[in-house]
Amino acid sequence: MTLIDELTDLLGDDLLLEDDARHSRARDTWPRSEFDQWQGRLVLPVVVAVPSSTEKLAATVQLCRSHGAPMIPRGAGSGCVGGVLASSDSVVISTERLSGLCWLNPVDGLAAFRSGTMGIDAESRVRQDGFTIGHWPQSIEISSVGGWVATRASGQYSTAYGNIEDIVYAVEAVLPDGSIYRSRPTPRASAGPDLRELLLGSEGTLGIITEVTFSLRPLPEPGVRQAFHFEDMSAGIDALRSVIVPGWRPPVVRLYDAGESRRHFRDHVPKGRCVAIFLHEGPPGHAELEAAAVAELCQAGGGEPADPGAVDHWFEHRNTVPTWTELFEQGLVADTIEVATSWRHLGQLYTAVVEAISAVPTVIAATAHTSHAYQSGANLYFTFAAQPSDPDQYQSVYDACWAAAMQAATDCGAGISHHHGIGRVRRPWMADELGDTGAKVLRTVKTALDPHNLMNPGVLIPD
Amino acid sequence: MTLIDELTDLLGDDLLLEDDARHSRARDTWPRSEFDQWQGRLVLPVVVAVPSSTEKLAATVQLCRSHGAPMIPRGAGSGCVGGVLASSDSVVISTERLSGLCWLNPVDGLAAFRSGTMGIDAESRVRQDGFTIGHWPQSIEISSVGGWVATRASGQYSTAYGNIEDIVYAVEAVLPDGSIYRSRPTPRASAGPDLRELLLGSEGTLGIITEVTFSLRPLPEPGVRQAFHFEDMSAGIDALRSVIVPGWRPPVVRLYDAGESRRHFRDHVPKGRCVAIFLHEGPPGHAELEAAAVAELCQAGGGEPADPGAVDHWFEHRNTVPTWTELFEQGLVADTIEVATSWRHLGQLYTAVVEAISAVPTVIAATAHTSHAYQSGANLYFTFAAQPSDPDQYQSVYDACWAAAMQAATDCGAGISHHHGIGRVRRPWMADELGDTGAKVLRTVKTALDPHNLMNPGVLIPD
Repeated sequence: MTLIDELTDLLGDDLLLEDDARHSRARDTWPRSEFDQWQGRLVLPVVVAVPSSTEKLAATVQLCRSHGAPMIPRGAGSGCVGGVLASSDSVVISTERLSGLCWLNPVDGLAAFRSGTMGIDAESRVRQDGFTIGHWPQSIEISSVGGWVATRASGQYSTAYGNIEDIVYAVEAVLPDGSIYRSRPTPRASAGPDLRELLLGSEGTLGIITEVTFSLRPLPEPGVRQAFHFEDMSAGIDALRSVIVPGWRPPVVRLYDAGESRRHFRDHVPKGRCVAIFLHEGPPGHAELEAAAVAELCQAGGGEPADPGAVDHWFEHRNTVPTWTELFEQGLVADTIEVATSWRHLGQLYTAVVEAISAVPTVIAATAHTSHAYQSGANLYFTFAAQPSDPDQYQSVYDACWAAAMQAATDCGAGISHHHGIGRVRRPWMADELGDTGAKVLRTVKTALDPHNLMNPGVLIPD
Repeated sequence: MTLIDELTDLLGDDLLLEDDARHSRARDTWPRSEFDQWQGRLVLPVVVAVPSSTEKLAATVQLCRSHGAPMIPRGAGSGCVGGVLASSDSVVISTERLSGLCWLNPVDGLAAFRSGTMGIDAESRVRQDGFTIGHWPQSIEISSVGGWVATRASGQYSTAYGNIEDIVYAVEAVLPDGSIYRSRPTPRASAGPDLRELLLGSEGTLGIITEVTFSLRPLPEPGVRQAFHFEDMSAGIDALRSVIVPGWRPPVVRLYDAGESRRHFRDHVPKGRCVAIFLHEGPPGHAELEAAAVAELCQAGGGEPADPGAVDHWFEHRNTVPTWTELFEQGLVADTIEVATSWRHLGQLYTAVVEAISAVPTVIAATAHTSHAYQSGANLYFTFAAQPSDPDQYQSVYDACWAAAMQAATDCGAGISHHHGIGRVRRPWMADELGDTGAKVLRTVKTALDPHNLMNPGVLIPD
């Protein structure tokens, strides 16, 4: 029997053969794949499997493995680094029918969802019981909870509530050999390496997430919002550091450079200034105490109070995700690049990456903000746009911008990815990120668990 | 050339051949090995290597590997689960001469120590610059910073400051093939699986930690101390949960059952009551706000204010670590067993383990406290003592107590180890902890990285 015959026997209506179905699941939102699609060059998979149970997904993996067929795991396809991209001999395995709440326990504040559940649906569901997951990526309306784990995602409240690895209590996943892994559900363990960490950020190369249990928080009272503007990024970074180091942890801490402050907060901030916005939440009395302390620290660092409407404005627009095709049609190629480093290198990293991208011919904008802060450093989230005279140049200009940013980041000793992942776009720099030994370890683990390299080949793992 | 000749050429004075040197480094503080030593049955390694640089340690590993010699990595030997135990054909590789501060950067709040640095020395060093590591295990005076990572340790302030995996910024380690791994120094990354997590808790089976970089906190002002006593463990657990769930995070949160309250706090707490002690710290104003809220929550949960001298008393005695031999000589065999579960199962777990241990013949005490709390649950730390009539029974009674506790914990669905690790004592239950698939993954990774099983054989990884 052929693979398709066997998959049909196994999955029935949960196997999608139509052109439309294969077309809409062949890629994520990586601008380079979207450009290929715009140019009519998108490659389609052989077939799309949409198994409706973990067991059927495991059997699908076993069948593909026995036929030597490459598998492309897919959540909701909101990734932006080329982590999902079909090849003409591949089977896309989508978690879209693996959806919904498995259970919620209000005493423990735990909720388990099947991995294809959309982020916003999971969050809405736990809110019915007075909880929040505390994880709110910009993509929450178009991403799945399994995708959050597979890409090692961050949310907009991470500075207080942590990143996805801090919020996940347990995972279930199908491994490359088709076996089903379930992590021990416990708040913390010293029982060898944390095997969940092999799946977090594995981008489908080491397994397919099928269920995620979250440790929830009570839905907080509306918090305190405030904003300050600074002379330049350096002053703003110093002020953020003065807030974070002593232990304040506002869920939202964002500092925009002058270009982005002008672009997003024109009505709230004087031209040329860098705005920092804060949301304070917590148990009773905490938000007010923290807000007062942060106001004092920001003003001691040269910040001037800004219209708090800036924060409201940000909340209203925070889930807006651009469509690259709209930009292509305007003659623009653009993307975002997030990196991270320690406090002391943050200003240098900002300048180096902006200068490196700006030096690429046809670039018309290179700006940044920081959106996730830690005891010892923070991220920087760059946005660039270029206006090549001809669509034929889009790819080369796009690649040149990425290469410029990645080279500048590695030269500064920064981490090359804060929360979007590696996918295909960052893969050429993964050996720099991991070092030769780290790259060897990752390849060794991959080969041991997936000896025929069938799970999402071409992604993440450096050659 | 023999292995010893080659090691002598490589290490010179950093190779220890004397009986005393081999004797004092043949084991950790596992009661079973201490009993063997007390009975004159301790097995000594061939030799002890104490390399004074990462490069020499790597070369030592390469030599042992080329000769097929089992390697027993050793930090300061304070582990208590049999993670360090020499065999007669083994080379102990000790990090004791890999000691001291590499660098400290006050702007980033980062400090790198060589892995053999004693915990208390590292903490004292960063305090000179106004920082704390925020990690204070009971063993801080007798454990090394590399051991903290290798065993996935917890400190007494973990409820606010996190466990070792939350405090480590970067690691350097020598892998089983002798290559040197250095993790990317960045506050957070989405760049594949976090490879540091393979080393955290690996107990010497996947590599030897050679350097640890910590993310430091400013040394806080003296905090607020308070204590409350409750009718029983169940009431105390409910009160703790009411503190943690809304988001309060006192660095120290400890609840003792009636037996331990009597044993440790006789002068501060009425007989039969369960005492909870708290330390509140944080940025200005936070400790007072939190202390007031916690007092209200504890009293709402039926707690009565206790003499805060209980907390002072705990601080004065918190590093006391028993010597098993003193107990053997009194006719006692004893140990501690820490496990963890979610809030809803905590009371049941407490009762089940106490009853299971108490049912073992000759047991005279089985008590517990909780010392590390999380959004969705907490740990329980049991202490047992038995008084067999004959030292010949020590081993079988000891093993029976452990088996009773582990069986009760796995029956409750709890995690079998909160922070002491697996070593040899918990290894028979590791397959239950990980599940069949998890155990297979761990074995697969181990075999891929250490194909001849030379790094700490017999520890952690289930058959």
